Amino acid sequence: MNRTDSFSAIFDPASVAVTGVSPGSAGERYTDYLLTYGFKGKIYPLRPKGGEFRGMKIYKSIKDVAGPVDLIICCIPAQHVPDLLRESAAKGVKAAILHTAGFSETGRREGQELEAEVVRVARATGMRLVGPNCMGIYRPRAGLAFAYEFPRESGRTALICQSGGNSNFLIRAAAERGIRFSKAVSYGNACDVNETDLMEYFIADDETDLVAAYIEGVKDGPRFRDVLRRLSAVKPVIVLKGGATPAGKEAAASHTAALAGSDAAWNAVFSQSRAVRVDTLDEMVDMMVTFRFMPVPPRGKRIATMGVGGGVSVLATDECHNAGFLMAPLDEAVRRDLTRNVASDAGAMLSNPVDFPFWTMSEEHFRDAIRTLMKWEGIDLFLFLAPLRQSEPPLAEYVPFVDYQLSNLIKVAHECGKPTAVVINFLATGQSWLAAAGLQQKCYEAGLPTYHSTASALKAIGRLMRYHEPK
Amino acid sequence: MNRTDSFSAIFDPASVAVTGVSPGSAGERYTDYLLTYGFKGKIYPLRPKGGEFRGMKIYKSIKDVAGPVDLIICCIPAQHVPDLLRESAAKGVKAAILHTAGFSETGRREGQELEAEVVRVARATGMRLVGPNCMGIYRPRAGLAFAYEFPRESGRTALICQSGGNSNFLIRAAAERGIRFSKAVSYGNACDVNETDLMEYFIADDETDLVAAYIEGVKDGPRFRDVLRRLSAVKPVIVLKGGATPAGKEAAASHTAALAGSDAAWNAVFSQSRAVRVDTLDEMVDMMVTFRFMPVPPRGKRIATMGVGGGVSVLATDECHNAGFLMAPLDEAVRRDLTRNVASDAGAMLSNPVDFPFWTMSEEHFRDAIRTLMKWEGIDLFLFLAPLRQSEPPLAEYVPFVDYQLSNLIKVAHECGKPTAVVINFLATGQSWLAAAGLQQKCYEAGLPTYHSTASALKAIGRLMRYHEPK
Repeated sequence: MNRTDSFSAIFDPASVAVTGVSPGSAGERYTDYLLTYGFKGKIYPLRPKGGEFRGMKIYKSIKDVAGPVDLIICCIPAQHVPDLLRESAAKGVKAAILHTAGFSETGRREGQELEAEVVRVARATGMRLVGPNCMGIYRPRAGLAFAYEFPRESGRTALICQSGGNSNFLIRAAAERGIRFSKAVSYGNACDVNETDLMEYFIADDETDLVAAYIEGVKDGPRFRDVLRRLSAVKPVIVLKGGATPAGKEAAASHTAALAGSDAAWNAVFSQSRAVRVDTLDEMVDMMVTFRFMPVPPRGKRIATMGVGGGVSVLATDECHNAGFLMAPLDEAVRRDLTRNVASDAGAMLSNPVDFPFWTMSEEHFRDAIRTLMKWEGIDLFLFLAPLRQSEPPLAEYVPFVDYQLSNLIKVAHECGKPTAVVINFLATGQSWLAAAGLQQKCYEAGLPTYHSTASALKAIGRLMRYHEPK
Repeated sequence: MNRTDSFSAIFDPASVAVTGVSPGSAGERYTDYLLTYGFKGKIYPLRPKGGEFRGMKIYKSIKDVAGPVDLIICCIPAQHVPDLLRESAAKGVKAAILHTAGFSETGRREGQELEAEVVRVARATGMRLVGPNCMGIYRPRAGLAFAYEFPRESGRTALICQSGGNSNFLIRAAAERGIRFSKAVSYGNACDVNETDLMEYFIADDETDLVAAYIEGVKDGPRFRDVLRRLSAVKPVIVLKGGATPAGKEAAASHTAALAGSDAAWNAVFSQSRAVRVDTLDEMVDMMVTFRFMPVPPRGKRIATMGVGGGVSVLATDECHNAGFLMAPLDEAVRRDLTRNVASDAGAMLSNPVDFPFWTMSEEHFRDAIRTLMKWEGIDLFLFLAPLRQSEPPLAEYVPFVDYQLSNLIKVAHECGKPTAVVINFLATGQSWLAAAGLQQKCYEAGLPTYHSTASALKAIGRLMRYHEPK
C-alpha cells in the first residue's frame, strides 16, 4: 500500500469501525458524529459486550464484522490498543485514528513502550495511524468530524493541529468569520502520521489552497524544513508554534511528548520558507481570513478609515500608526467631495479618519461618500469601522443601522475593487458578539474580511503584504 | 456659587430641563433616559413648538417653567446655545450639559468663536458647563444616563471620558465583568468642566474608590500633573491616552479639539504619579477588574494554572513566560497529592500547567486537587483556565460543566485566600461569548476577577503588582 492509499483510507473511508461504544463514552460520540455529519459509508460500532446504539448492531469484535473496514477509530484504554491494531490489520483495516491517550505524553516508561509497540505493529502491517492522544479527522465532505457544532459545508482551507482543543477552537472561530475546511487533522502525539506527512499531502491536494498549522514539535527537522518550503512555495501556509518559550516547551512535552526545538532552529526554518508565522490562535484566524478574503494585497500602507465614533477613530489612528500604516491626510478635492454629501459637520470628523453622521444623509449620499474615499488614489486600503456597543440605542435597534451601512459598503467595494476590510469592534457584551456574528456573515458572504479590532486587522494585512513582497 | 455646588447640580440635580425635545431627536432620548433610569426630580422637556412627550407637557421656553431648574441638557443646534444659556442663567439654572456638537472640534472659525462665547456666558453667570460635543452624565443613583442598556445599580468606580462612544463601550464592557459606577462623565471638548476638574472632584468623592480616565488632551498641563499626583496618591487611577501617536494627535484635534501634548510630556506626568497607564480600552477594563477584584496582589510571580485542554495549557505557558511570570514546577509532594486524586493520567498533564480530567473524579476529589495546588506555598497566584469552545460537546451541554468547575473553584478560593483569577477564553462564537457572560457574573458575584486570555490577565496583574511596589 502506498502513501496515497493510506491517506485515502483516512480522509475518504468507505467504512468505519468505532471501538469502545459503551454508554456515555467517546466511542459513542464518535459513532454519533458519523451519523450527525452524514457519513455515507458503512458504520460498525464495536464493544466487547455487544448491544445496540442508535438502532445499529454493536459488534463484539472487529473480527465479527462481515464486510471490509477501511478505518477504525480507537477509543479503548491504551493497554488494549496493540491487540486491537493486530486484529484490525488481520482484517485488512488500512488506517486507525487513536483517540486513546495514555502513551508517551504521560512521561511514564509504560506509556512510551506502549507507543513504541503500536508503531511496530503499524510498520509491520502497513497500517497508518493518526494519534494517539488526538481528536482525528474533520472532513465535512466525507461526513467525518470530532466534535459537535462544526460547519457541515466544505471549504478550501486545511488545518493541521497537534492539539485537539485548539482544533475545536480554530474550526469554530474561523467558521464564524467565513472559513470552511477541506480537511482538518488533530494528530496528537504523531507516532506515525505527523505534521510533515500532512504538509506533504497538502502540497498536491486539489481541494486545498490554504494551510494552517498548530505545531508543538516536529519529529524530523530537516525533512520538515524541506516540506514546509515546498508547501509554502505553492500555497499560503500559516504556522503557530506552541511551546515557543522555554517554559512552553516543557508544557508541550507533557502535552504531546513533543520535542519543541530551539527558537533559533525554528527561526531558521521560517526564514527559508514563505510560511507566515503567527503568535496566537486569534492571529491565526485573522490570517486565514486575510488570505481567504483579500486575494489582492494593498499596494502600499496608506489607509483611510470611515465609521461612526470619534473616540473609536482616534484610537484606530493610534493603532494604525503603531502598525506602521499611514492614515493618509485627505487632499482638498476629496475633502470637498466628501463634505458635499454631509448635511452638517457638527460632531463629525471630515478629515481622515472620517467619522460619519450617516443618519443625516440619504442612502445615495452615503454611498457617494464611501465611493469618494474608496476611489481616491491617495489610499491603498479602506477600513470600515463598525463599532457595536459605543452607541446610545439598544443593541437591537442599532444593529439594523450597521447592517444598512454594510449593505452600502459592500455595493461600493464590489464596484471599486480597492482592498477593503471591515472592523466590527467595541463588542462589549455577549449580546453584541452574537449580533456581530450575523454582520460578519453578511460580510464574508460578500467576500469581505472582518476583524475585531483595527490593530488585529492591520497586523494580519501587514503580514499579507510581506508575504507578497518579492523575495 | 462655589465649585462643590456646581458639581452637585451636575451629579445630583433636583430638577432637569431638556431642550430640543422633537420627535426622534436626542432631546427625546435624553428625556427618556431620565424616565428609564428612574430620575426622581422634576423633568421639564423644552421645544419652541411646545406639545407633549410621554404624557409630559413640553414647555416652549425655559422661561415658561414655573419651578426652579438645577440642570439643563442642551440638544439644540450650536448657534442657539449662547442665547439658551443666557436665558437659563437668568432663570437660575446652575449647570448645563452641552450634548450639542459643532463647536471648536469642527476646526472652523465660527465653531471656535461660538465655543468662546459659550464660555464667556458661563464665566459671567457662574453656570458650569459639561461639553460641548459630549454625552454627559451617567449616575445610576441619581437616575441620570446617556444611553440605553447601562446597569441600574451603582458601584464605586468613576469614569472620566473625553469620548462619548468610548464611554458607552467602557461602561457596558466593564459591567459585563462586574464593574459598577458611581459616576461616569463624558465631557467632550471640555470648554469649562475638564478632566482635571473632574479628577480633583474625585479626590474627595466618598462614593468613589477607583478612577478610570480616557483623555485625548489636557487644558493645563502643570495643574493636571499636580491633580493626577494627588488623586493617584489616595485612589487607584487608570489612564488611557487617546491620540498617543503623532497621527492619533491630529485625529484627537479633529475629534474634541484636544491639544494632545507630546509623548515626553505625558511620560513625565505618569512617572510623577501612581496612575497606571494602559494602551487599549480592553486593557482599561482588565485593569478596573483587577483593582476591583484582586485587593491583595500576588507576592511574587510564581503561578500555577489548572484547566481543561493541553493545547490551551501549552499556549498559556508561553503567554505566562512572555509576561514575565514563572509557571512553577510542582514539587514532588504536591505532585503526589495531586496524582492521588486523579483516576488516570491518560491525556492529562500533571505537572504545571495542570490539565485536569475532572470528569473522571468525584466532586470532593476535584476540590481536593484545586486545594492542593492553591494552598501550595510554591505559588503566588492561581489561574483557573475555563476555555469555552475547545471541547467536543454542544455548548449548551458544556457550559454546565464549566459552571460546576467554577462553583468548586470559588469554594476553595474563598477558603484559601490566595490571589486567584479566572480566564474564560477560547470564545470562538457569539454563542460562547453569551455563555461566558453568565459564567463571568458567577465569578464576579463571588469576588473573583475574570479575563479573556492568560496574556491579558497577566498583563493586568503585573501592572497591579508594580502599582503596589514600594516606590
